Amino acid sequence: MPLSPDQQAEIEAQRAAPGQTLRTVAPGLEEHLYTAYPVLDHGFVRVVDYMGDDAAICQAARVSYGKGTKSVQNDEGLIRYLMRHWHSTPFEMCEIKLHVKLPVFVARQWIRHRTANVNEYSARYSILDREFYIPAPENVAAQSAINNQGRGDLLEGEAAARVLEVLKGDATRCYDHYQELIDADGIGLARELARMNLPANVYTQWYWKVDLHNLFHFLRLRADSHAQYEIRVYAEEICRIVADWVPFAYKAFEDYRLGAVSLSAQMLDCLRRMLKGEEVTQETSGLSAREWREFRQMLDDGAG
Amino acid sequence: MPLSPDQQAEIEAQRAAPGQTLRTVAPGLEEHLYTAYPVLDHGFVRVVDYMGDDAAICQAARVSYGKGTKSVQNDEGLIRYLMRHWHSTPFEMCEIKLHVKLPVFVARQWIRHRTANVNEYSARYSILDREFYIPAPENVAAQSAINNQGRGDLLEGEAAARVLEVLKGDATRCYDHYQELIDADGIGLARELARMNLPANVYTQWYWKVDLHNLFHFLRLRADSHAQYEIRVYAEEICRIVADWVPFAYKAFEDYRLGAVSLSAQMLDCLRRMLKGEEVTQETSGLSAREWREFRQMLDDGAG
Amino acid sequence: MPLSPDQQAEIEAQRAAPGQTLRTVAPGLEEHLYTAYPVLDHGFVRVVDYMGDDAAICQAARVSYGKGTKSVQNDEGLIRYLMRHWHSTPFEMCEIKLHVKLPVFVARQWIRHRTANVNEYSARYSILDREFYIPAPENVAAQSAINNQGRGDLLEGEAAARVLEVLKGDATRCYDHYQELIDADGIGLARELARMNLPANVYTQWYWKVDLHNLFHFLRLRADSHAQYEIRVYAEEICRIVADWVPFAYKAFEDYRLGAVSLSAQMLDCLRRMLKGEEVTQETSGLSAREWREFRQMLDDGAG
Amino acid sequence: MPLSPDQQAEIEAQRAAPGQTLRTVAPGLEEHLYTAYPVLDHGFVRVVDYMGDDAAICQAARVSYGKGTKSVQNDEGLIRYLMRHWHSTPFEMCEIKLHVKLPVFVARQWIRHRTANVNEYSARYSILDREFYIPAPENVAAQSAINNQGRGDLLEGEAAARVLEVLKGDATRCYDHYQELIDADGIGLARELARMNLPANVYTQWYWKVDLHNLFHFLRLRADSHAQYEIRVYAEEICRIVADWVPFAYKAFEDYRLGAVSLSAQMLDCLRRMLKGEEVTQETSGLSAREWREFRQMLDDGAG
Repeated sequence: MPLSPDQQAEIEAQRAAPGQTLRTVAPGLEEHLYTAYPVLDHGFVRVVDYMGDDAAICQAARVSYGKGTKSVQNDEGLIRYLMRHWHSTPFEMCEIKLHVKLPVFVARQWIRHRTANVNEYSARYSILDREFYIPAPENVAAQSAINNQGRGDLLEGEAAARVLEVLKGDATRCYDHYQELIDADGIGLARELARMNLPANVYTQWYWKVDLHNLFHFLRLRADSHAQYEIRVYAEEICRIVADWVPFAYKAFEDYRLGAVSLSAQMLDCLRRMLKGEEVTQETSGLSAREWREFRQMLDDGAG
Repeated sequence: MPLSPDQQAEIEAQRAAPGQTLRTVAPGLEEHLYTAYPVLDHGFVRVVDYMGDDAAICQAARVSYGKGTKSVQNDEGLIRYLMRHWHSTPFEMCEIKLHVKLPVFVARQWIRHRTANVNEYSARYSILDREFYIPAPENVAAQSAINNQGRGDLLEGEAAARVLEVLKGDATRCYDHYQELIDADGIGLARELARMNLPANVYTQWYWKVDLHNLFHFLRLRADSHAQYEIRVYAEEICRIVADWVPFAYKAFEDYRLGAVSLSAQMLDCLRRMLKGEEVTQETSGLSAREWREFRQMLDDGAG
Repeated sequence: MPLSPDQQAEIEAQRAAPGQTLRTVAPGLEEHLYTAYPVLDHGFVRVVDYMGDDAAICQAARVSYGKGTKSVQNDEGLIRYLMRHWHSTPFEMCEIKLHVKLPVFVARQWIRHRTANVNEYSARYSILDREFYIPAPENVAAQSAINNQGRGDLLEGEAAARVLEVLKGDATRCYDHYQELIDADGIGLARELARMNLPANVYTQWYWKVDLHNLFHFLRLRADSHAQYEIRVYAEEICRIVADWVPFAYKAFEDYRLGAVSLSAQMLDCLRRMLKGEEVTQETSGLSAREWREFRQMLDDGAG
Repeated sequence: MPLSPDQQAEIEAQRAAPGQTLRTVAPGLEEHLYTAYPVLDHGFVRVVDYMGDDAAICQAARVSYGKGTKSVQNDEGLIRYLMRHWHSTPFEMCEIKLHVKLPVFVARQWIRHRTANVNEYSARYSILDREFYIPAPENVAAQSAINNQGRGDLLEGEAAARVLEVLKGDATRCYDHYQELIDADGIGLARELARMNLPANVYTQWYWKVDLHNLFHFLRLRADSHAQYEIRVYAEEICRIVADWVPFAYKAFEDYRLGAVSLSAQMLDCLRRMLKGEEVTQETSGLSAREWREFRQMLDDGAG
C-alpha cells in the first residue's frame, strides 16, 4: 500500500473540502489533485498543488511582447508559437508540486535535474518502510549488446527466476538487519548509519516542485524511449496529468519536443539533396556511419 | 495612473469571480490578490498568483523529517526552528507571482537576484509609456560623505530644484524624440534601436515569480536600511503582503533575519569577555577600527 | 578608447609574465588571453581566465560513462556524440571568464541568461564614463513590417541623419547634466540618483563567468540571425574565441546547434511523405500557414 | 586502494609536466593539484582544476565598485569587507573542480547542493567496484537521545561488533550477487537493473565543479559539528585545500561564517540588557526554552 492510512485520510479530507479562491483555477487538474496514481510496485505520483494554466502562459507572454502579441489571434496559436521558437520564460510562470514515492536508484537519476525544489524524506531522522522495488517479470532484461546503457532481450526461465530470488532475498535480509541495528531496545545504532545497509531499490519519497518549462525538459529526457524504464513510467504518468492541466501547452510540447527531431547541418544538407532527387548514400553524405544510421532511422520511423 | 484601463478592468473581473479549488487557500493573501499597490510615483506591486501557506511549509518539512518533527508541537514552533537553523527547502515550497511596474534602474538591481522567473515588457516589440520616475523633494539627497554608495544630507532650495528640472526636462525631451523616431508615419525607426534613447528612470514592468526562500533572501537585502530607497520601497510593500500570506514564516523571518545580527568569531570573543566584566577597547579587541565601529553600533542600537 | 590606460597597463603586464601551472592549458585560448577585441563603437570582449579544454570534456564524460566510453575511439567522436545526444554535464566542466564592455540596453538582454556569474560596474559607487553607443549608418534601420521585433529596410538620407543627430544630442546633453548633478563642488547629488538621467546606450562593463554548456545556449540564441544586431556582434566575437579554445566542441556546436534545425512531429510526417514522392501542400500538410512557411524555408535554405 | 592504477599513472603524468600559462596561478593550490587525499576507508578528494585566487576576487569587486574600492587599502581588507557584508558575486569569480570518491549515502546528501556541476560515474553504463564504507569502530554510535538526527554514545563490545559484522556481511553478499547477475557469461542482467541490489555504502565517484561562494555555503553546512561525520570529513579535507588556495578569503570565511553566530532580534535585545547589567533569565528574556538554551550555549562556548 503506497500511502499510509494517515496520508490517505489527509487526501480524503482535502478532496472533501473545496475552498474559494480568486486565483486562476485549472479544472482539468483539480480532478487529479491529491489522488495518488500508482507507479511501479509501491510507488506513486500525486499532485499536491499548482499555479497557473494555459491562460497564465499567454498572460505572461503578453506582458513581454505587449502589442506585438496581438497579431497572434488566440491562446493556442500563441502557445504553439512560443514553444516552436524556444521562448521559455512564459512557461516558467506555471508551477506544480508533486508528492512522489520512488526507489532510491530512480531518485538518484531524477535529482540530477537541478532546477526544482525538493524535500526528501530523511533517513537520518526517520525510519524507512520495508518496501523495495522488485521488477515485474516482463521487465527483467539482459544488458543490451548494442547499447552500452540499455536493455536487450527479456530474460526468461531460470535466469529471470534467479534475478527475482536474489533481489527479494537481499532486500529482505538487508531490511531485517536494518531493523535489528536501529532497534531502540537492542543495539540502537544511529539511523544515519543504519540506513547505509539498505539497497538502492528501497523506496523513498519527496515533494518535488518545478516550473512547467523545466518540467517539460525533464519529461523530454525521461519520457523518451532511451530513458530507463523505471523512471520513464513516472514521466509518463506525469505526462498524463500535465495534458489535463495545460492542454494547449502539452500538445505543443508533444509536437515540437517529444515527437520532434533535430537535424544537424550535414543532415539538413543531405535532405535537401534527397528532395532534389539525388541518391545520397553514407559515403556521399558527409555523415559518420553512426550518424547516418540515426538519420535513416529518423526518416523511416521518426525515432528521435 | 499606474494601470492601464484594460488592466484595471481585468483586475475587477478577476476579483468579482471567485472560483472553487481543492488547493490550499491563504485567506490573508486572497484579500490582496490583483490589487495594485502604488509604489513611487508611477509604479506598483500586485499579486497575480500564489501557491502554499504556512501549513505547506510544515507539510514539506514533515515529509523530510518524518517522525522527527513530532517533537515540535505546532506549526509556528516548527517554522521558527526551520528558520533559525537555516533549513531552506521547506520555504521553497511556497511560491508567489507578482506584477511589478518599476523604473529601469531599479529593475537592473532587482534582476541580479537570479533564482526567479521573469517576463519583462519588451521594448523590442512594444512601445514604452511616457512615464518616468521623478523623486519627491524629500528624497533628493547628496552623495554621502562617509559611505561610497549611500546618500547623505537632503538637498534643498536651488540645488534640489535644479535636480528636478534636469530630470524632468531630459526625460521629456528624450521621450519626445523617442516618439518622433518610432513614428510609423515619419522616420519609423526600429523600436529595438529607438529605445536606447530613453533614460534609466523610464518605467518598465514585469511578471516576477519566486519561491518564498529566495523572496526572503531578496527582502533581507532590499528591505535593509542600506538598500537604495527606490528599491527598498518595493521590498517594504512586498513585506506587508508576505506578512499576511504566511504570518508565522514572516514573523520568523523578521526575528531571525531582518532584525538579527551576525557576530564574527572575534566579536563573539569580545562579547564573552565583556559579559565577564572585562573592559574591552578597540585596541584589545582584535578587531579593525571599522569592525569595532560596526560592533559597537550593533550593541547600541542593533543596526545590522 | 575602450580600455582605460590602467587596464591597458594591467593587460600588458599580464601578457608579459607567463607562469607555470600543472593545470590543463588550452594553447588556442592562451593566444587570446587579456586581449580586448573591439565590438561596436566603444565596447570590447576580452578573456580574463578559463578552465578546461576539449580533453576536459572527455575526461568528465569518461568518469560518467566509464568503460562504456571506450567504444568511442577518440575525443572528437565522443564530443560529437555528447552534443548530438544532448548530454550537457560534460560541457559544464569547462568555464570561461570574460570582461565585457557593452551598452546598457545590450546588458539588459544579456543578463536574462541567469546561469552565469556577474560583477557589473556599479553606478551607485562609481561614475560612468562619457561613452554612448551610436549606431553606424549601415545599422540604422526601420521597424520591420513583417516581424514585430525585427528591423526592416535601412534608413537613408535625412531620416538616418535625424536619428543620429537625436541620439548624439540627447546622450551629450544627458551626460552633461549627469556631470553637473554629481559635481562634488556643485550640487553633489548622490550617484545612485544621478545615474537615472543616463540613456540606455551608455556603456557599462562587467565580468561575466559561465560554463561552456550555458555559453553555448547563450550563443545559440544570440549569434542567431533573429537576435538584435547589437548583441549578435558580441556573440559572434565570442564564437571566434571559443572556436580556438575548444575546437572539437565548437565544431559540434556549429553542426548540431547553430546550423541545425528542429522538425515538429507534423513536419517530420510531411517530410517522410515527400521522400516517398508525395506532393505535399500546405492544405494537405496539417501545418498552419505560418509553420508551413517556416518548413519550406528550412528545406530551401536552412534558415532555422 | 582508492585510485585505479590508470588514474594513478594519469596523476603522475600530469604532475610531471608543468605547462606555461598567462592565467592567474595560485601557488598554494598548485601544490595540491591532482593529489588524491584519502577520506574514509576508500574515498578521496583531489583537485582537478581551478580558476582564480584571492586577487581575482578583488579584481571582480573593483570592476563592480570602481573608485569606491580605493578606500580599502589592500586585498585582505577588501575581502574581509565583502565577506562581512554578504557580497557574494566576487567570490563566484573563483571556481574549483574536484574529483571525489564517496559512499552513495554521502553522495545523496552532497547533491542537494544544486548550484554546482556534476558528472557522476554511471552504473547504467559501467560496473561499480567492490568497495564499501565500513565505519571505524570509533565511529559506530547510537542514535542520540536528545537530537532526532544525531549520534549519541559510542557503541562498544558485542553491539559494535554486530554492527560491523552485519555491514560487512550484507555488502559482501550483495556485491557477490551483483556480480553473478551481470556476468556476461551467465545471467547477463542489464547493469541498470543489477545496480539496485547494492547498498548505500557502496562507493561512487564524480567530478564536482563549484564556484567559491557556493563552496563556502557547502562548507558552512557540512563542516559544521551538526553535519553527519561521513560528509564532514570530506568538508574538512576541502577546507584544508581551500585555505591554501585563497588564504585571505578562507580566513574571512572562518571568522565571519564558520566561527560566527547569528543573534535573533530577541537575543540581541537580551544581550543589550545584560551589558547594561540587568540579570536576564529565560522567563524575562522573551525567548523560548529551546532558544534560551541555544543563546546561553553561544555565550558560553560559541558553538553556533
